Amino acid sequence: MSETTPFNAADLQKMFDASPFISALGLEVLSVKADTLEVEVRMPMRPNLERLPDSNQFHGGPIASLIDTTGDFAVGLAVGGGVPTIDLRIDYLRPGFGPYLTARATARRVGKTIGIADVDVFGADGKLVAIGRGCYSAKRG
Amino acid sequence: MSETTPFNAADLQKMFDASPFISALGLEVLSVKADTLEVEVRMPMRPNLERLPDSNQFHGGPIASLIDTTGDFAVGLAVGGGVPTIDLRIDYLRPGFGPYLTARATARRVGKTIGIADVDVFGADGKLVAIGRGCYSAKRG
Amino acid sequence: MSETTPFNAADLQKMFDASPFISALGLEVLSVKADTLEVEVRMPMRPNLERLPDSNQFHGGPIASLIDTTGDFAVGLAVGGGVPTIDLRIDYLRPGFGPYLTARATARRVGKTIGIADVDVFGADGKLVAIGRGCYSAKRG
Amino acid sequence: MSETTPFNAADLQKMFDASPFISALGLEVLSVKADTLEVEVRMPMRPNLERLPDSNQFHGGPIASLIDTTGDFAVGLAVGGGVPTIDLRIDYLRPGFGPYLTARATARRVGKTIGIADVDVFGADGKLVAIGRGCYSAKRG
Repeated sequence: MSETTPFNAADLQKMFDASPFISALGLEVLSVKADTLEVEVRMPMRPNLERLPDSNQFHGGPIASLIDTTGDFAVGLAVGGGVPTIDLRIDYLRPGFGPYLTARATARRVGKTIGIADVDVFGADGKLVAIGRGCYSAKRG
Repeated sequence: MSETTPFNAADLQKMFDASPFISALGLEVLSVKADTLEVEVRMPMRPNLERLPDSNQFHGGPIASLIDTTGDFAVGLAVGGGVPTIDLRIDYLRPGFGPYLTARATARRVGKTIGIADVDVFGADGKLVAIGRGCYSAKRG
Repeated sequence: MSETTPFNAADLQKMFDASPFISALGLEVLSVKADTLEVEVRMPMRPNLERLPDSNQFHGGPIASLIDTTGDFAVGLAVGGGVPTIDLRIDYLRPGFGPYLTARATARRVGKTIGIADVDVFGADGKLVAIGRGCYSAKRG
Repeated sequence: MSETTPFNAADLQKMFDASPFISALGLEVLSVKADTLEVEVRMPMRPNLERLPDSNQFHGGPIASLIDTTGDFAVGLAVGGGVPTIDLRIDYLRPGFGPYLTARATARRVGKTIGIADVDVFGADGKLVAIGRGCYSAKRG
């Protein structure tokens, strides 16, 4: 995939499935909007993502990983693929429970060297569970 | 474990092993220093933690999770167990490769309601891979 | 002003004018929306806010201060006044020039102990100059 | 000053004094260590830096500005001058009172495009008042 070719949802799902860690999280691409640099991703509950056994509560680690990955490809839409994460901030607002969480990322600005994305994570009830902001390289990793 | 009982390395390893997600990361407690609020944790490479297959490179998600967890229990030493994460910041300095990463967390301050921990993550070669800073509740979750 | 009395724009301007540092920044309250926890504040250029003489460019410090203050009172709308800042993150997206910058803050969540606000800062041309996110105590300082 | 010429404390004080905003803060360079990329800066109390009149308490804005500036030149030691701030994070640990605050910045890593600095801010009593971490461009602004 060249630097200038945007990817669609099916392309992104293939990139997710090619990563062992993202596969272990089970991330599902819901939508990709190349014109507005938006990506929406769902993370269904799995036993290996729980904080405590049979709690149905996601550990914070998968939530941080979901935010990082979704924000990464929102910026990546401007450059044609995944980009290196420079830094990441997560604010945990409420405990996150199954059956799934949904992350919506929007790139706020992509310059020549740096891109910034905001990511909101919602529970199945529509309530905000966490918000994240990532700073990424705007050059392919 | 009461609010006032500090935990040792074996106690912390049991807490790690009781969490499905932390077990999936395979975190190993190296040391716990209750007097200085320091925790050291190792994360060996596993296939499910790789960014790309056979890359031997950790995905950023496990690194963020390692930082969150190690910082959490550094603050938690002051209150006798794990604490809710309020927010978390990760700076990725270099790609992180196997065979393992080591995280060293120190609580910088634990007040009545909030605790802050700094976490440095090193590769097996001793080079800094990532640095993190977490803000945690100083009350048990 | 009691914990339960929301404040309006004139009240907030009085609070700003009572603070020596905020007065030195010259912050002007544009709007306060108690129902949606939103605050809008303008910072006109002044010689003492410049990065370099006659540059017409704001130093990053006043921008960080504008973000902190505007976010603080967005959360503060839920509790009746200013609140202690726990932590603050600023992303600088473009250089900020006079004649003024405008900050729009929205509280994303205010719980029992913690409140989070997002703040966007725009130049007079409407372009995004910086974005900030603050974590505040939800109890009066 | 060329890209490759390190600066000393007197050079840095001149750069500070040439900036209207930094002059308004009254920042004083205490030490510059080019070999370890460390900078130490003092900010004496002034009436225009107070949170409330006659409180002797620094507003959070000057503390954020002190952190940004001190970290900037710690990274800047590697490139010969001030650098653009990409993002900045401040954790406020205790209220900061006069007669002065002291900031100690250390660059944790300076790569080809990005530099990261950690900054600790102490009160005159030696207690930690705030900690900051900044991500800067590693190219001259």
